Amino acid sequence: MSVFEKNPVLKAVFDFSAEDTARAEDMKREKIVSLMEEGRAVLLGNPNHKNVKPVLVGGGARVKVNANIGTSPLECSPEAEFKKLKIAEESGADTVMDLSIGGDLDAIRTRMLSMTRLPVGTVPIYAVAKRYADKGRKPEDIDMSEVFEEMEKQGEQGVDFMTVHTGIDLKGAYYGDKCGRTLGIVSRGGSMLARWMLKNGRENPLLTDFDKILNIALKYNITLSLGDGLRPGALSDAGDAAQWQEVINLGRQAGEAAARGVQCMIEGPGHVSLDLVEAQIKGIKSLTGGAPLYILGPLVIDNSPGYDHISGAIGAAAAVRAGADFLCYLTPAEHLTLPDENDVKQGVMASRIAAAAGEAAMGRKSALNIQKKMSQARQKLDWEAMKEAAVDPSEIDRRRKTHKDKKECAMCGEFCSVKLQH
Amino acid sequence: MSVFEKNPVLKAVFDFSAEDTARAEDMKREKIVSLMEEGRAVLLGNPNHKNVKPVLVGGGARVKVNANIGTSPLECSPEAEFKKLKIAEESGADTVMDLSIGGDLDAIRTRMLSMTRLPVGTVPIYAVAKRYADKGRKPEDIDMSEVFEEMEKQGEQGVDFMTVHTGIDLKGAYYGDKCGRTLGIVSRGGSMLARWMLKNGRENPLLTDFDKILNIALKYNITLSLGDGLRPGALSDAGDAAQWQEVINLGRQAGEAAARGVQCMIEGPGHVSLDLVEAQIKGIKSLTGGAPLYILGPLVIDNSPGYDHISGAIGAAAAVRAGADFLCYLTPAEHLTLPDENDVKQGVMASRIAAAAGEAAMGRKSALNIQKKMSQARQKLDWEAMKEAAVDPSEIDRRRKTHKDKKECAMCGEFCSVKLQH
Repeated sequence: MSVFEKNPVLKAVFDFSAEDTARAEDMKREKIVSLMEEGRAVLLGNPNHKNVKPVLVGGGARVKVNANIGTSPLECSPEAEFKKLKIAEESGADTVMDLSIGGDLDAIRTRMLSMTRLPVGTVPIYAVAKRYADKGRKPEDIDMSEVFEEMEKQGEQGVDFMTVHTGIDLKGAYYGDKCGRTLGIVSRGGSMLARWMLKNGRENPLLTDFDKILNIALKYNITLSLGDGLRPGALSDAGDAAQWQEVINLGRQAGEAAARGVQCMIEGPGHVSLDLVEAQIKGIKSLTGGAPLYILGPLVIDNSPGYDHISGAIGAAAAVRAGADFLCYLTPAEHLTLPDENDVKQGVMASRIAAAAGEAAMGRKSALNIQKKMSQARQKLDWEAMKEAAVDPSEIDRRRKTHKDKKECAMCGEFCSVKLQH
Repeated sequence: MSVFEKNPVLKAVFDFSAEDTARAEDMKREKIVSLMEEGRAVLLGNPNHKNVKPVLVGGGARVKVNANIGTSPLECSPEAEFKKLKIAEESGADTVMDLSIGGDLDAIRTRMLSMTRLPVGTVPIYAVAKRYADKGRKPEDIDMSEVFEEMEKQGEQGVDFMTVHTGIDLKGAYYGDKCGRTLGIVSRGGSMLARWMLKNGRENPLLTDFDKILNIALKYNITLSLGDGLRPGALSDAGDAAQWQEVINLGRQAGEAAARGVQCMIEGPGHVSLDLVEAQIKGIKSLTGGAPLYILGPLVIDNSPGYDHISGAIGAAAAVRAGADFLCYLTPAEHLTLPDENDVKQGVMASRIAAAAGEAAMGRKSALNIQKKMSQARQKLDWEAMKEAAVDPSEIDRRRKTHKDKKECAMCGEFCSVKLQH
């Protein structure tokens, strides 16, 4: 059976978007189908998300960038998050995740889905955990069947992809929590599930009932993003038993998902020293059969709060070069507070730069062509042409406003090396 | 003859600073001497720079960061540059270069030397070119003996290191200017010299009279920074004949300098695709006998004006891992205008992050220790301890001001993964 026979909703999504996708990715339609068939690429798009513009991730498609937005219990302004959604979109994000954990989550989510054509992702366990927290109850009290119900509801609402922490098991939770990690478990969902398992002495229901998740995903073509609840949150924790224990599970589940025609991606680290990035990415890719890899960073140092978009961009560029497909942005606010509007823009830009750097390093034609266009424009001191090639054209106008009558810029003035050649 | 016998001024500088340097670098005194003997490390410090705090560069010393400041013909406010000097210092720069090309250059330079204990670098040809430009004359009109005179004067004033473009020769200038580069020559000094050579049909006097430069350097222990006038300014120009032609010359000159006991560093690129960074750094290091390598970027993409500190940090981290010793910062203003105060800070921080990432990747103990301290503090949600380990402690206070009474941060609130483990 083909992937389209197993997953007819995906076929419907593909049929209405194939032409645009093929053009955007400069890929033949047949190539895209075969990548999806092999589970090496996914097409993000739930038909219940009205006007969604499906996005291809993996298999050599352009590397995509996701922006995380959403309320927190301490900073809860839905309007501010809607504004950030617009800014993420304007800055060139390919997808957004609504990670809200404060306020009326259903209202926020459905509003975001109606506001944007970009695929929207969520982490359904957050909504469940919030309901319990609102009643003064703890993560270990959660009735996990509510997570499946939440997934179903959010699928119906139109959520395009969902993080589910299906790979963290009792042994992994024990490794991550008790076996000498510097920083333990740093994933919110992973931490909730680890606590649930360790307090209740029971296996992770998202793992034992993985089949239920597949059934829900199939109904709405929800792309599963298999979460890395045990990702390292410190350089000194990278590559330990906890981490790989989970990746092994994720690899098995990716195979099961592919067999059922369910689209799935794998989530990756985290905090990883630059010398280990390639090994991590290739290791995860090989354990998960080449499924699209969606990474958060990796941050190559731990001590850069306020500048984590930069530490993350260094790791992400190396990761893209090694095979990562999808970058979750990090903003300057990471580890400190919710990002503000400017942080969202800075985060998207840093990720887009990392993606471009990685793609140029792989010799991808489209990535090299735009660099060449930029340099050709620079050689002519043609600022309008530079704006067409720049990752953020607005910066050129903003920074040149005082001397825009000049051909050269205000750094060198008449000593401009390019002008000296003319 | 030992390096101290050949260069007694260096001996004097070393003698008064050796204890501090050994402690700062966690290196034995004998080790430092032997690195200088081999030309693999240099001690920046001209005794005429009152109160200078000498800085060791190369040979496994902590990777250093330089901040470029200085006026331009279009943005000429000495006071603003003095302020930037202070900000660079506060942000953790190890050295500054005064690249002023507007206003009273002697006044600006001597004021900067009196303001800071950090080693100060310059590019003497700028002052000469400005004198000619002020009289309406062109770079090809320059009497190059004035460059040697300018070096002598600036050595007397106390300048600690100077960029001299001694490696660009007539053949290299021809390659760089006429042989199909996308962006030609992008170094200001390189561009002036190329124009001088090509218009006058004569060889570069800084190359033919290299010995004169060595004599001046010896008098003041000026560390020569052999400039890469032909560095690539576009990804598509990296690694071409022009670039390597110059590096070959620089390698020969580094040998000549070492034979005379003159301290010298090599300047490196530029714009280089991430896949070529390691080959570039190792290639330059091997052609120049392991002399300290001082790099500008490398920028791993061309089209990120407004964010070049990020593209530069990606390249610099990879370069440090491959052996680069000294990072010249790039600011968000690069390619667009002079940096403002905030740009200076952002540039220094991005370079410090790249240096730390590269050092952590090399497994350097001091670099790994500080990361571990940060993560241990994070595990305890101990914000004061985090501030001690962070590259910029002020960001922690600035961003946490609204919720500083809470143990957790405002990103996750009660859903803090670390708190869930407690």
